[in-house]
Amino acid sequence: MAQEFKIGLLGRGTVGGAFAELLAERAPAIERATGKKFEIVGTLRRDSGDFDEILGQSDVIVELMGGTDPARQYVKGALEAGKHVVTANKQLISQYCDELVDIARKSDVQLRFEAAVAGVIPVIRVIRESLAGSHLEKVHGIVNGTTNYILSEMANTGADYSEALKRAQELGYAEADPHEDVSGLDAAAKMAILARLAFHAPVLLDEVSCEGIEDVKPEDIAYAKEFRLVLKLVGVAERIDSGMSVRVFPCFLYRGHPLATVNGPFNAVMVESDAITEITMSGPGAGGTETATAVLGDVVSVATAETEFPEQVEQLDVVPQGEVESAFYLYMDVEDRPGVLAQIAEILGDEGVSVKSVVQSGLGDNARLVMVAHRVAEKHFWSALDKIAKLDVLRRPPRAIRVIEEEFG
Amino acid sequence: MAQEFKIGLLGRGTVGGAFAELLAERAPAIERATGKKFEIVGTLRRDSGDFDEILGQSDVIVELMGGTDPARQYVKGALEAGKHVVTANKQLISQYCDELVDIARKSDVQLRFEAAVAGVIPVIRVIRESLAGSHLEKVHGIVNGTTNYILSEMANTGADYSEALKRAQELGYAEADPHEDVSGLDAAAKMAILARLAFHAPVLLDEVSCEGIEDVKPEDIAYAKEFRLVLKLVGVAERIDSGMSVRVFPCFLYRGHPLATVNGPFNAVMVESDAITEITMSGPGAGGTETATAVLGDVVSVATAETEFPEQVEQLDVVPQGEVESAFYLYMDVEDRPGVLAQIAEILGDEGVSVKSVVQSGLGDNARLVMVAHRVAEKHFWSALDKIAKLDVLRRPPRAIRVIEEEFG
Repeated sequence: MAQEFKIGLLGRGTVGGAFAELLAERAPAIERATGKKFEIVGTLRRDSGDFDEILGQSDVIVELMGGTDPARQYVKGALEAGKHVVTANKQLISQYCDELVDIARKSDVQLRFEAAVAGVIPVIRVIRESLAGSHLEKVHGIVNGTTNYILSEMANTGADYSEALKRAQELGYAEADPHEDVSGLDAAAKMAILARLAFHAPVLLDEVSCEGIEDVKPEDIAYAKEFRLVLKLVGVAERIDSGMSVRVFPCFLYRGHPLATVNGPFNAVMVESDAITEITMSGPGAGGTETATAVLGDVVSVATAETEFPEQVEQLDVVPQGEVESAFYLYMDVEDRPGVLAQIAEILGDEGVSVKSVVQSGLGDNARLVMVAHRVAEKHFWSALDKIAKLDVLRRPPRAIRVIEEEFG
Repeated sequence: MAQEFKIGLLGRGTVGGAFAELLAERAPAIERATGKKFEIVGTLRRDSGDFDEILGQSDVIVELMGGTDPARQYVKGALEAGKHVVTANKQLISQYCDELVDIARKSDVQLRFEAAVAGVIPVIRVIRESLAGSHLEKVHGIVNGTTNYILSEMANTGADYSEALKRAQELGYAEADPHEDVSGLDAAAKMAILARLAFHAPVLLDEVSCEGIEDVKPEDIAYAKEFRLVLKLVGVAERIDSGMSVRVFPCFLYRGHPLATVNGPFNAVMVESDAITEITMSGPGAGGTETATAVLGDVVSVATAETEFPEQVEQLDVVPQGEVESAFYLYMDVEDRPGVLAQIAEILGDEGVSVKSVVQSGLGDNARLVMVAHRVAEKHFWSALDKIAKLDVLRRPPRAIRVIEEEFG
């Protein structure tokens, strides 16, 4: 029988609910991978549950209440009682990180908080583990999805700040009281945590200089386009000489910058050192399911010193390439006469290949057709291409290249 | 006295040399962070060193020889002898992953191979640990820097394949014999490893369908620009119905796709599941230092069940915001008369602020000046801005927004 791994859950709001749901769905696969049966043995809600009782039954406490009080007392209590803790609580960690880590170390238990910083982007694990041997120079990025959504909306639609905020609130990307996000305070707390981890040096929240986006004018966003600039709320933690600077501010990025293409409620973080130049990570900001995914990753790590290779492997057949669906770019040198496009379109249509866009250009010996076709099982496309290649209106064999259709942001 | 952590190094080529150098440089900081003194106790070179002797002295074997023979025998021998192994060997892991993991499990030691897949991008750790609780649907990306450099060069300069390859060879991004890279075989081996980890299912290298870039025509890259398409060599591992498909092929991406902006010798990987939509990670492909950084991250992880918070914290002062260097966008509503730009430029010049670009536009009451200034200590910029704000040629207070100047790719 599989060993049990018992979880005490503090808080059953959006994230707590998403965590419980995700765990229920994934428990069988996690048990196959780790040999342990993950189970929530008690839940502390606002109006029910007893902390001491839950603590006594648990191997790990998952704190998803938010705020520093009473979360701080519960987390301290859990660590002192020799229980591991996983938390998504940014306020708690940005203010009491050193105190809590100290207790965890003395009790020889783990304290993990991946979900506190950048939603599902595993920046904390990468800094603490993958880059544990590296001298980090700078961590910077977009760590607040609300403000990134608002700025993207202003850029895309020309809306002013208050219109874009209203839209963000309608979509659930901004709170009714958006102050914490739009003032930059949320991002500042996250940057304080990242600076602490990257530089191994204490960072107080009030040492982080912070500007929000409330005063951003749509005209500036529009004018700056002439310079190929895009506006983002950026958090920076960097070494400067023998010191450091941690700050949050709205700023322009050139369109070629990795952060410039991060749109909507997404987050992205870049970690830089001399040895590696940089790693960029991006993904959806903190929604309930995304945060729950990050929390579950931490819980699994706590339960397994190292996450093991799964003992029981799945059986997955390899799908033949012809059954795989792809979109295609198609290039053809054609005779310059009427009806050519119709012949080709008919062959594609017969095979169920639908055309997304087509450009005819050139004259006489330079006439050509370039098209993009929508996704279709590849065997149908190849079959159509064989027929097209045999048409006498083609002056040379056609060329086809797959297209990835998804557009982001 | 700090506990020693003894490393046996197999191979002293480019990566082996870079690893030894990086370790020497970082050992003091790693000792502060982990409490352990990391030391190379023996090195096996082509013409010197004895494997058994090195094995006997080591806590971990770091295999950086490449190839499957004799690397496989050494790695098996090390695991069977109860030693942890860290390797950057893509051939070895793509062909013998299951065999080696099985031995590691029986011996209760760790086998880590982050550096085998995507240079410094920690995709293996993210899949095995951060997303251990997730049901992954798809992993895809650019996992070969040589071909990405060649395709970027073709797109940027209009060069044909052989010219771009030659340039890649001159810069050290391609081998004298580039077959392994340009045929897609290197990427196929990496995708086999990623599929194995993501789907927990066995993947044989010859089940990966694979097309290279040798036949790519510069005309196609040029024509496809009309459709906002960019050509990349992409590796895909995805679940399809109850099976999977693993494949490598050149394909077009829309310019808004996260992989489309990955240029030059960079790699990028996207991991997707229903719960998280996707995480994208990008960074430099495998150079010596980058690979050594990934190897060192694995070695530190092996030495510390969990990477602990550093016991001794650094002391870093917070640099005042005025000393931080920033570039700026500057917007001014100005009087429509001669000499305005000269007055403003003089003030900027006096404070050492140099102007990168400037656009004057509008007439009469709509006249405005928009500029971008290069990086300068912020106190100088703010001082100039104070003076500019007092000019009577300004019709309204000026607006300034920071600019991140770096352009990538």
